[in-house]
Amino acid sequence: MNKMPTINTLDDVRQILTELPGPDVEAARAAQTREPQLTKPAGSLGRLEQLAAWTATWQGRYPPRMTTPNAHVFAGNHGVVAQGVSAFPAEVTKQMVANFERGGAAINQICKSIGIGLCVEQMDLDNPTQDFTQNPAMTDTECADAIAFGMNVVDECSDVVCLGEMGIGNTTSAAAICLALYGGSALTWVGPGTGLDKPGIGKKADVIGLGVKLYKPHMHDGLDVMRCLGGRELAAIAGAVIGARLKKVPVLLDGYVSTAAAAVLPSVNKRALDHCKVGHMSQEPGHKLLLEKLGKVALQDHSMRLGEGTGAALAVALLKAAVACHNDMATFAEAGVSDKDAGEKDA
Amino acid sequence: MNKMPTINTLDDVRQILTELPGPDVEAARAAQTREPQLTKPAGSLGRLEQLAAWTATWQGRYPPRMTTPNAHVFAGNHGVVAQGVSAFPAEVTKQMVANFERGGAAINQICKSIGIGLCVEQMDLDNPTQDFTQNPAMTDTECADAIAFGMNVVDECSDVVCLGEMGIGNTTSAAAICLALYGGSALTWVGPGTGLDKPGIGKKADVIGLGVKLYKPHMHDGLDVMRCLGGRELAAIAGAVIGARLKKVPVLLDGYVSTAAAAVLPSVNKRALDHCKVGHMSQEPGHKLLLEKLGKVALQDHSMRLGEGTGAALAVALLKAAVACHNDMATFAEAGVSDKDAGEKDA
Repeated sequence: MNKMPTINTLDDVRQILTELPGPDVEAARAAQTREPQLTKPAGSLGRLEQLAAWTATWQGRYPPRMTTPNAHVFAGNHGVVAQGVSAFPAEVTKQMVANFERGGAAINQICKSIGIGLCVEQMDLDNPTQDFTQNPAMTDTECADAIAFGMNVVDECSDVVCLGEMGIGNTTSAAAICLALYGGSALTWVGPGTGLDKPGIGKKADVIGLGVKLYKPHMHDGLDVMRCLGGRELAAIAGAVIGARLKKVPVLLDGYVSTAAAAVLPSVNKRALDHCKVGHMSQEPGHKLLLEKLGKVALQDHSMRLGEGTGAALAVALLKAAVACHNDMATFAEAGVSDKDAGEKDA
Repeated sequence: MNKMPTINTLDDVRQILTELPGPDVEAARAAQTREPQLTKPAGSLGRLEQLAAWTATWQGRYPPRMTTPNAHVFAGNHGVVAQGVSAFPAEVTKQMVANFERGGAAINQICKSIGIGLCVEQMDLDNPTQDFTQNPAMTDTECADAIAFGMNVVDECSDVVCLGEMGIGNTTSAAAICLALYGGSALTWVGPGTGLDKPGIGKKADVIGLGVKLYKPHMHDGLDVMRCLGGRELAAIAGAVIGARLKKVPVLLDGYVSTAAAAVLPSVNKRALDHCKVGHMSQEPGHKLLLEKLGKVALQDHSMRLGEGTGAALAVALLKAAVACHNDMATFAEAGVSDKDAGEKDA
């Protein structure tokens, strides 16, 4: 069992980030050795071959395993909702958490259908973060606590964790984080979220522009960005990314908000997201640009924009199939199948 | 129970194709009525919402169901292999069928991982089709028999059928079919198949160009194309597409070969593939162009090019998730979740 380091301040998080473990080169090599022996033309399973090797590499184990996938949905409330940045009212966060707990939401059905454990994590819902147009969203301690919570909540028995979120107003936080990290025009980073119209999107862009301008002198790395503009559920996702790395659990990020939450980490350690794949391409327009900035490719695109971890959870079906093919297919030798070009002399 | 029509000749198939049943408009309407009541922003499940409605529409049933997905892998041998068009020898078809039956192939692992029934159908493997550079691949009767076999093999209890294939040499047949149906340069329709090099691909293009030229005066519709240039497993896939339509079973086509097999049907009835989705985009380069010709969009792209039904089978995970979300999510009313803009007055 890995003992998790203690986090009291964001400086503790910075310290942990500088000491992240790297890939398991031996597990990667074992996967690369077996793959060409399997009864199929070389490379014909495409991304599934890469996913099997990636799973082994970051599980630090060979063969890889995909029997216990888990999803965490972190929920938080945002003071910035007072600025009218969401089509839904703030109380929906709590109502949807109740819906998750009763099994009525999309993420419940997807987890059940694919065989994924689901944990819903409420992040102090009665105590929204500060409205970042007025004050930094969180104090150093609040942000560090949320990161520590996320770090500790990842179960080291998970074969992969899907990281999702629920929080009315949190696409505004996500867009503000992206603007602070990467610059550009505020409008390139905002989208309709749960369903804003065009004037609503313009207002949202103004809000994030104001927030980023306000704290610019105080944001020296991604963790400062998270503290000033993020939210508890976003900080918890960043923490879960760190915890998963320490516990040898590969990560599937979900859409725009989850990816933005994770994106604060590479400014401290550029290898911090090497154990993460992005489960799907969200329709929220900033996601595509964010993936380009991170050098990540989404595993699928079904024009979804729900959050809750739904896109990440769907991708677990791919991981299961990838690991099953890698581990359980017969080799050419076992199956007595002629290898490529074996028959050329007969042709 | 639907009684299947009798097929003795390709003209019988033509007759059946003119009388295909259409979509179930009531089931479609029922799906469209429920969808906006579910606890998510309207449209936020993207393609999953469309897939649930499509499933209901072509199952002719509401609510839709996805508990019994089945996959059929049709295997056949091709006389045109004598022209040196494949990187693997012809005996691999039989060897891989044995591998399927022992559970050692990729399709076995994917079906097991997603919960799909798998049936392997051997199409007279000891009796390859004629080399189409010399004679038409099949007689009218041989082709009609293979279509009838495919039509009858689809189980009306299936909630969806995945149609895949195995047959050394069959990407050559697929490319020849596409060239005959759509024209263009032979090279745009051929690819490496199981792993041809560039000179091999050039030779393959010559072979299909020769075949298409040879029978051009005799090919008046897609069924003639199938007879002259196809193969038993391709004809069986076309037959399974017809059988599924008659038995109210939606279809997931796999990659280039499966899609090319189905593509012979719209020349007889342009609505013949309305109950079919394409499970994935194959790396075999002709597939993209073929989908454009058919006006179809692949459900995913994982750079795969294996066949066996693997891409179609992977897409069943999406259908299961789509149907589970549609059927089992709570409505706004059931969950007591505030609908969009409900809170604007408070903001």
